[in-house]
Amino acid sequence: MNPVMNSALLDPDRLFPAESSSRQIARSLYREVADLPIISPHGHTQAGWFARNEPFPDPATLFVQPDHYIFRMLYSQGVSMDDLEIGQPVIRDPRKVWRLFASHYYLFRGTPTRVWLDFAFSTLFGMEKRLSPETADEYFDAISEKLRTPEYLPRALYDRFHIEVLSTTDSPVDSLADHKAIRDSGWKARIVPAFRPDPVVDPEFAGFAERIAQMGQQTGEDTSTWKGYLNALVKARARFKAMGCTSTDHGHPSAQTADLPEAEAAALFSKVLGGKASLQEQELFRAQMLTEMARMSVEDGLVMQIHPGSVRNHNKFVYERYGRDMGADIPRAVNYVDALRPLLDRFGNERDLTIVLFMLDESTISRELAPLAGHYPCLRLGPPWWFHDSPEGMMRFRELATETAGFYNTVGFNDDTRAFLSIPARHDVARRIDCAFLARLVAERRLDEDEAHEVARDLAYGLVKKAYKL
Amino acid sequence: MNPVMNSALLDPDRLFPAESSSRQIARSLYREVADLPIISPHGHTQAGWFARNEPFPDPATLFVQPDHYIFRMLYSQGVSMDDLEIGQPVIRDPRKVWRLFASHYYLFRGTPTRVWLDFAFSTLFGMEKRLSPETADEYFDAISEKLRTPEYLPRALYDRFHIEVLSTTDSPVDSLADHKAIRDSGWKARIVPAFRPDPVVDPEFAGFAERIAQMGQQTGEDTSTWKGYLNALVKARARFKAMGCTSTDHGHPSAQTADLPEAEAAALFSKVLGGKASLQEQELFRAQMLTEMARMSVEDGLVMQIHPGSVRNHNKFVYERYGRDMGADIPRAVNYVDALRPLLDRFGNERDLTIVLFMLDESTISRELAPLAGHYPCLRLGPPWWFHDSPEGMMRFRELATETAGFYNTVGFNDDTRAFLSIPARHDVARRIDCAFLARLVAERRLDEDEAHEVARDLAYGLVKKAYKL
Amino acid sequence: MNPVMNSALLDPDRLFPAESSSRQIARSLYREVADLPIISPHGHTQAGWFARNEPFPDPATLFVQPDHYIFRMLYSQGVSMDDLEIGQPVIRDPRKVWRLFASHYYLFRGTPTRVWLDFAFSTLFGMEKRLSPETADEYFDAISEKLRTPEYLPRALYDRFHIEVLSTTDSPVDSLADHKAIRDSGWKARIVPAFRPDPVVDPEFAGFAERIAQMGQQTGEDTSTWKGYLNALVKARARFKAMGCTSTDHGHPSAQTADLPEAEAAALFSKVLGGKASLQEQELFRAQMLTEMARMSVEDGLVMQIHPGSVRNHNKFVYERYGRDMGADIPRAVNYVDALRPLLDRFGNERDLTIVLFMLDESTISRELAPLAGHYPCLRLGPPWWFHDSPEGMMRFRELATETAGFYNTVGFNDDTRAFLSIPARHDVARRIDCAFLARLVAERRLDEDEAHEVARDLAYGLVKKAYKL
Repeated sequence: MNPVMNSALLDPDRLFPAESSSRQIARSLYREVADLPIISPHGHTQAGWFARNEPFPDPATLFVQPDHYIFRMLYSQGVSMDDLEIGQPVIRDPRKVWRLFASHYYLFRGTPTRVWLDFAFSTLFGMEKRLSPETADEYFDAISEKLRTPEYLPRALYDRFHIEVLSTTDSPVDSLADHKAIRDSGWKARIVPAFRPDPVVDPEFAGFAERIAQMGQQTGEDTSTWKGYLNALVKARARFKAMGCTSTDHGHPSAQTADLPEAEAAALFSKVLGGKASLQEQELFRAQMLTEMARMSVEDGLVMQIHPGSVRNHNKFVYERYGRDMGADIPRAVNYVDALRPLLDRFGNERDLTIVLFMLDESTISRELAPLAGHYPCLRLGPPWWFHDSPEGMMRFRELATETAGFYNTVGFNDDTRAFLSIPARHDVARRIDCAFLARLVAERRLDEDEAHEVARDLAYGLVKKAYKL
Repeated sequence: MNPVMNSALLDPDRLFPAESSSRQIARSLYREVADLPIISPHGHTQAGWFARNEPFPDPATLFVQPDHYIFRMLYSQGVSMDDLEIGQPVIRDPRKVWRLFASHYYLFRGTPTRVWLDFAFSTLFGMEKRLSPETADEYFDAISEKLRTPEYLPRALYDRFHIEVLSTTDSPVDSLADHKAIRDSGWKARIVPAFRPDPVVDPEFAGFAERIAQMGQQTGEDTSTWKGYLNALVKARARFKAMGCTSTDHGHPSAQTADLPEAEAAALFSKVLGGKASLQEQELFRAQMLTEMARMSVEDGLVMQIHPGSVRNHNKFVYERYGRDMGADIPRAVNYVDALRPLLDRFGNERDLTIVLFMLDESTISRELAPLAGHYPCLRLGPPWWFHDSPEGMMRFRELATETAGFYNTVGFNDDTRAFLSIPARHDVARRIDCAFLARLVAERRLDEDEAHEVARDLAYGLVKKAYKL
Repeated sequence: MNPVMNSALLDPDRLFPAESSSRQIARSLYREVADLPIISPHGHTQAGWFARNEPFPDPATLFVQPDHYIFRMLYSQGVSMDDLEIGQPVIRDPRKVWRLFASHYYLFRGTPTRVWLDFAFSTLFGMEKRLSPETADEYFDAISEKLRTPEYLPRALYDRFHIEVLSTTDSPVDSLADHKAIRDSGWKARIVPAFRPDPVVDPEFAGFAERIAQMGQQTGEDTSTWKGYLNALVKARARFKAMGCTSTDHGHPSAQTADLPEAEAAALFSKVLGGKASLQEQELFRAQMLTEMARMSVEDGLVMQIHPGSVRNHNKFVYERYGRDMGADIPRAVNYVDALRPLLDRFGNERDLTIVLFMLDESTISRELAPLAGHYPCLRLGPPWWFHDSPEGMMRFRELATETAGFYNTVGFNDDTRAFLSIPARHDVARRIDCAFLARLVAERRLDEDEAHEVARDLAYGLVKKAYKL
């Protein structure tokens, strides 16, 4: 028996509990949600792909180059990023890169990356054997051929994926030209931007002052003053909202918030803008800006997302040689309970404000996040993020959050991905794991089956639509 | 099929593993412990209920108003605490409150609150359909009717619950008049106080100095001096002990202990009493008092309970409008290993001292608590507290604590509740989860079945009786 | 039915999942790895046992006295360490100690100690009834008798255990005379030392300066200077390497590393050596030495192990009366992400360097360790250490680490034990739990069965051999 020959890449019962009564329940729940449309309220796909609708060039450029989940694992095992042509504008020898990837595919055993890739290989490209050194060329040729056909253009795939709405993540000074182009094209897809102000809010961001000046020009505000800067942000948010944006996103090193008197905030802004702020003052400025953003959200209704606790660009060598977002961001312990207090003292009881909290530190789920979200009207818990967007991570999240926060203080799933082809796979994993969790509750007689069906639909579709106002 | 019609609220196999061999073992273990008497060594019921033995007025006053687990969840989803009449001395429109609660009952899916409530609704009030907007009035009427009958008076329920001993939690200046009244009434129930000195030990407690002065008057000691203050505490403890008290309880923001030289402690007391202590000195005073309390416990034999790590009254608006204990206490990360050292250096090896440690920070269970309790003779681990007093939380506790501390450094179950009617439900959940955990050990051949039976009885009855000297 | 009579100590399916399809897969995986040779790359057995090959004196001296897992549990329940004759050079009344142990054997229910002991009792001594007060003498006599036979001499047991290589852990000033004696004896076993420089690297170690001076004499270097000290370490490492050593080991209170300019490091060394360094400076010196050790590893190829986060000798009374390593080491929260950065900035991208990270703080597995090991080429994750070297701990480790770091950034199993007779039991538990984890992945269709077989072999044998260059 040749296992490669016999391996069906996708089993219909994957990720369901092995125990037969629970598996039956999981199947029944999953049948109800499997075909619901995808709502993708937060992610990092490029509007330009859909604006231009050009074919993806080759398997290596499509799957390997943009996916730091893949190349970080290869790098951890001694594969050179140069050999993978990471950071190159165009891959010169995509087949060679693909073979290198295929020869290390065993590294992904037990990881979500493997699940996502097998899903795409199987459902989109009809592959039936496992990727391996032996099947590398077969994969490369089959995928390459399909990518040249109209059915594999970005818009065709978008339609095929049954996406109801897709949000990108954009700089506050982005022209949103690609979003406009999509609208103007007459294509009916709903692709909306999200307002990510980090470049003009985080003093450690490269080009911070220049971006603020640029935002001033775009909005006609004098961003050298605190008041003008805030006005410019209000106008930039309005410009995003006009293009369909319903949310903001904030990627800070910590969850620290602050609520300074206006004069102090203004003085801090001057210092930060002038590049004279200490590291502590920079942190205080970010903290203050979370509270300012909450205030603006109370006014304009944009849903606020906070993604705290990632030490960005931890690997100095990789950062200096290859730049940002190269798989070297590492989580750090986060305190939400004290950090969020200044913001919550001010806006925590606003019923019309929604703040979605994300986490990379699982010890906070049962200790801080579920208790906070199970009390404050404005707080909701985002799905497990990044390293935890995985079968075990999602299951732990439900186990740790549900008993205190319930299901209805969570907001469904975010794929949060740069890898467009992984979107259906990621939503499928999330739906399956939620069904598996619910099936256990039903099998252990902790939830009635009719309720589980309703919850499954809410987790897959209803909650995200409501929380993100989509 | 109308699911509401078909929902039996209580399945006999609830909370047992779905896998059939494990479930058989769990059933067999549970049969042995299901009817053991309840020992409730720590909780927040009111002795006055039993002293006066008056009927509970209505379903909303009984179930909704005193239970912050319920109204915090409703509040988190935008229900107004005013609409729930929280904080009102008497609920004016209990049916309206009840309907509001019923219409949000779906929020409790997957939470322990749901399990406890369904247990009470089913076993006490004979309800067979799920609580919902449709059944709200049916519930209200059925419960109201029963509450007017003698079988639903506090003492009748106490007897029906098969409680062997019940501890309340009381201020050190409490007259214990209700406890005396119960004793004097000739009713044979064993209801005892626990000594909770926070009001005279925690400088942040409202009325701190006044309560100390009051304690001085009660005991005939000059509590303006360190020595007189300590003497007063010794006498107050003795007064509690004479009323059957076997334990003290300490709810501090952290687990910090200290062991200052006497002169320093006396000076700190003066400063604290005079209201001139900094936040740090207030923390140091609490820390010192834990060690003083341990010393007194070595002398008078009272079991010491420490409940650290809760940030009380986190929501400023709710605290200012509705007061303490309104569902807005949020856990914070706790360090036990360094914090307890001063106390343990002094009394850690006392074999006749028992200190029961509680936790809200689950990351400490395997890292600090089980290693500490698996070594120091005086330490025992309390059951999962508050947000973790739940099926998943209890199971995690056993999984994280047992391999290092064993079963015999734990102390059975505490219901720790203000909700009298939830007591049998809570003990039932604890017994079922312990049986489920033991069943897995037996099914995985890690424990012999005869041993599991012995352990199940110890966890349900033997250990708590021994640890709390009841 | 007498349960003692009916208890078979070892079930062939122990530690496998109860669910039948998963159990079948686990059995099949285990069959393949059960008889693989044992590679023990890190532990605390004594080379002297094998050099002298003298019989173990009696059951108490063999099982109870050296095993702090056992006596810490007994101590936690009030058994006196004096009654156990802990710390005595020779046990005067081993039968009395054994009976005391047997009468408390129930304390180990649900602990790994119980699993390890039952394994040894059953497989080595043929015991069939459970150890208890009733069977204590039967055990004592049967074991005593066997220990007097040639089959139970250290070398005979070593051969019987099917050990391919065993590493001890040794002071850098150890003469390694026992290792030489083993080599010279002609016995073919591969027993190698590991270089543990704590006594000459950690200023808090008793006799720090004396040991450094001794190292100077052994190596002919002037260890009063920074340069001479470093040279002496290089030479000491070379001496170990010549005796087969392939790894170093570092047991620090934290994971802190530093990369000071040479002049600063030299000045710090002088201060530390002169006994004039503050606690902070002592920590900084340890931090600097980790980076120095990494540099030496890049040069000489020794694999570096870091065991951080244990508060040693937490119990003052026990330390003062009985000394080090008496079961009173307690873990503390550890930050790896910031602490390792100075070292990683310098050597993190070295493909030929291997640093094996261990942990006692499980909250770091998914938050810090798996993300770090899933990126940096030099990092690997050691197996769960100490309190976590247990069925639940191992399972949690796989669940928390695999999705981000995969299997191939882990290094197989370390028994890390002082208890020679527990070695086969510990490896057996590790193999069973890994098979149980893999079986779940297969049963949930997350891994193909042929791949699981390959991974099982790698986890039991291949990875450890490769990571430790054995």
